[in-house]
Amino acid sequence: MKELIDWKKNKMLGLIKVLEDSYKTQIGINHVDGLNLPTADSIVDIITDFFRVIFPGFVGNEIVTTSSIHFYVGSIIEGLYGKLVKQITRALKYQCTLDNCEECECQWMANKISAHLLDSLPEIRHFIKLDVTAAFEGDPAARSYDEVIQSYPFIKAITVHRIAHILYKENVPLIPRMMSEWSHAQTGIDIHPGATIGESFFIDHGTGVVIGETTEIGNNVKIYQGVTLGARSFPKDEKGKLMRDVKRHPTLKDYVTVYANATILGGETVIAENAVIGGNTWITTSVEADTVVSINQPDLCYKKNGCE
Amino acid sequence: MKELIDWKKNKMLGLIKVLEDSYKTQIGINHVDGLNLPTADSIVDIITDFFRVIFPGFVGNEIVTTSSIHFYVGSIIEGLYGKLVKQITRALKYQCTLDNCEECECQWMANKISAHLLDSLPEIRHFIKLDVTAAFEGDPAARSYDEVIQSYPFIKAITVHRIAHILYKENVPLIPRMMSEWSHAQTGIDIHPGATIGESFFIDHGTGVVIGETTEIGNNVKIYQGVTLGARSFPKDEKGKLMRDVKRHPTLKDYVTVYANATILGGETVIAENAVIGGNTWITTSVEADTVVSINQPDLCYKKNGCE
Amino acid sequence: MKELIDWKKNKMLGLIKVLEDSYKTQIGINHVDGLNLPTADSIVDIITDFFRVIFPGFVGNEIVTTSSIHFYVGSIIEGLYGKLVKQITRALKYQCTLDNCEECECQWMANKISAHLLDSLPEIRHFIKLDVTAAFEGDPAARSYDEVIQSYPFIKAITVHRIAHILYKENVPLIPRMMSEWSHAQTGIDIHPGATIGESFFIDHGTGVVIGETTEIGNNVKIYQGVTLGARSFPKDEKGKLMRDVKRHPTLKDYVTVYANATILGGETVIAENAVIGGNTWITTSVEADTVVSINQPDLCYKKNGCE
Repeated sequence: MKELIDWKKNKMLGLIKVLEDSYKTQIGINHVDGLNLPTADSIVDIITDFFRVIFPGFVGNEIVTTSSIHFYVGSIIEGLYGKLVKQITRALKYQCTLDNCEECECQWMANKISAHLLDSLPEIRHFIKLDVTAAFEGDPAARSYDEVIQSYPFIKAITVHRIAHILYKENVPLIPRMMSEWSHAQTGIDIHPGATIGESFFIDHGTGVVIGETTEIGNNVKIYQGVTLGARSFPKDEKGKLMRDVKRHPTLKDYVTVYANATILGGETVIAENAVIGGNTWITTSVEADTVVSINQPDLCYKKNGCE
Repeated sequence: MKELIDWKKNKMLGLIKVLEDSYKTQIGINHVDGLNLPTADSIVDIITDFFRVIFPGFVGNEIVTTSSIHFYVGSIIEGLYGKLVKQITRALKYQCTLDNCEECECQWMANKISAHLLDSLPEIRHFIKLDVTAAFEGDPAARSYDEVIQSYPFIKAITVHRIAHILYKENVPLIPRMMSEWSHAQTGIDIHPGATIGESFFIDHGTGVVIGETTEIGNNVKIYQGVTLGARSFPKDEKGKLMRDVKRHPTLKDYVTVYANATILGGETVIAENAVIGGNTWITTSVEADTVVSINQPDLCYKKNGCE
Repeated sequence: MKELIDWKKNKMLGLIKVLEDSYKTQIGINHVDGLNLPTADSIVDIITDFFRVIFPGFVGNEIVTTSSIHFYVGSIIEGLYGKLVKQITRALKYQCTLDNCEECECQWMANKISAHLLDSLPEIRHFIKLDVTAAFEGDPAARSYDEVIQSYPFIKAITVHRIAHILYKENVPLIPRMMSEWSHAQTGIDIHPGATIGESFFIDHGTGVVIGETTEIGNNVKIYQGVTLGARSFPKDEKGKLMRDVKRHPTLKDYVTVYANATILGGETVIAENAVIGGNTWITTSVEADTVVSINQPDLCYKKNGCE
């Protein structure tokens, strides 16, 4: 057997030195001496608390009764407020440093935004109830509202989105996207926190769905797996830099249905009321109301019959 | 710096009151005073126990030897029986309440179903062995059976499916779908627990696959990523309600292969023996045996050559 | 209420006996008395350590400062070396048993490979910095490098790939694929550890992407969700067995862009420099440099206008 090279004795210190030096110079992929960023664990903890308040009795092993509900919801809300303030302060201070703010109002802003988000909870619950109903009404495989809440990845995705979207509108950096990517990893549904989504929404199956930042979705819209609501091209400014705040993604009006693996692209593309977009279609121009769009599916070739 | 608004002192109690009230009235997205539902954590624990018994030595850090196997398998099976009875009882009692059963036989039923599921374990292992073999034989990138078992998302998906399908056939509510959605989140493969799947099945890569509730799959079938075996339309009853127990999804006979991103729709669509369905195809009518179906791929436009 | 059947008393021992016997005979899906394989938990632990060293300050709640960095990186590297040696030794011994090696140099090899992987860390960080930059430059929705590192599934996928690929090239069995499938489960991006990927790579959204084992990707390549870089057919040897080491997957040269849901197949298919492959295309032959390939999208049928 060959002699073991004693890497730890001979080489390890050299490697550690090189890494230490690289942390000093390679700006961009490390955060030494930086401000504390919001942490992934804290964001998951916050999301879990929201689920506990929005769906009491559905999360973990908690038993929630009429006599305990006051203490149950009270303790979650109080804790959640503190957690939100802490992480949002971190996110705002981070932005302040990037922007060289003269005076940091981060703490004050974080209190205000946290209060606003929590005050929105009754409205969020109202919207999510409509989403649950839309899922149950829209899927013949659904057996009960409880099954929908417990098992449908869409419910996880839309609940996280409705929370993240509020923080996005308040210009909180980092956290909305951390929330949406947690949900993307769990569900395969990729909704940018910037997307505007109306009431009674439903995504069935969901894997592979992409909904871009500037998408606008009306009420009672239904979408299937693999649908992309994306950008057609990325406009650049006069310096050749990507422009980051242009409407690049489509608009879907009320009662639109989009079947599996359809692709709808472009900020000026409007799918009007009641339109039905067929599976596998590729749409880059607007569609009028009450229209069913399907592709003339490519001819199939049956080898047995000798077409090749 | 602006004065901090004391949200906790001034507003928090009001919010908590509104939420408490909403729990009383907004039926459908909360479970206060409801029966205890099966919990997600318990279902994951049960699935893990099944993996330990089906693949001893592959899960966690456990070392399993000939001398310890008797105690190893014995302790898992005994514990698993208790866990199954508890969660299945919860699921059945929940259904009982929905259905206003006069006399609840939930405990008796849960014992019977748990025993039946455990008694099926040798058969489940037999089927999964064939699935592992099909994966190894069907993928040139596979290096060993052990790699397949350790790493292929398909193995996770099919193992969970074969367990969940047994509970589905016994009409256990909630739990089968909780199992399949856990697997969907892990693998991107969405198999409804109602789907009937024969032996020596294989799904390669898997992300985006959707297999609907009433799908029937024969033996030695092979499927690639992004394939949908879905519904063509949702029949409604005379009251306009979705009919939930109709065959809506296709049938794939023995030795069928379906390449990536193909879509096969409809309860009357039968893909007969040995048929090969090409990538990106859209199939809504039956295909005869021994047929290779491919699409005449749409013409490609090469801009360099001036086609636009 | 019906009498409870005492399954535990009457039947359980019989089942345990059958399972025990099946472990003896059903080779292939159990590992009783086998060598200890690398465990999934250890591999995740190793990946986490790599993330801590590559992105200090981004993982967990750790605060990393100039004064603590020496101890921080030193303790991770020392621990990581031991963890790598242990798991790689297990993987090599496993292969040794399969191959009936006469003399096992597994321990020596594991030391050598672990040292090599750790010595590659500065280069890995250099590459990942370029990947982070490519993501920021390529996505108008990206707000900062920090957002990209914290939230983009691509960063998780490419970091794991660059580590797993080094172990793949050193012929370490099992572990590279365990790493890549962990990443696949987290991100929906399925990159085989064998794939060769140049610098400044970017995958946007990512769900459903499949990059096969023998794929070669140049520098500054950009890929969108649902893209498959796959095999056209699986060559078999004279015994009808799949050949496992042939180039089956395509080559993408520098500055190639591939839009969503495109499929590029075949080991001899070369997409040359600066080519742009449009969404939904199906490419099985080589594409010249500087060419934009799009499909003549199938005609759309608008039912309102009476086309059906």
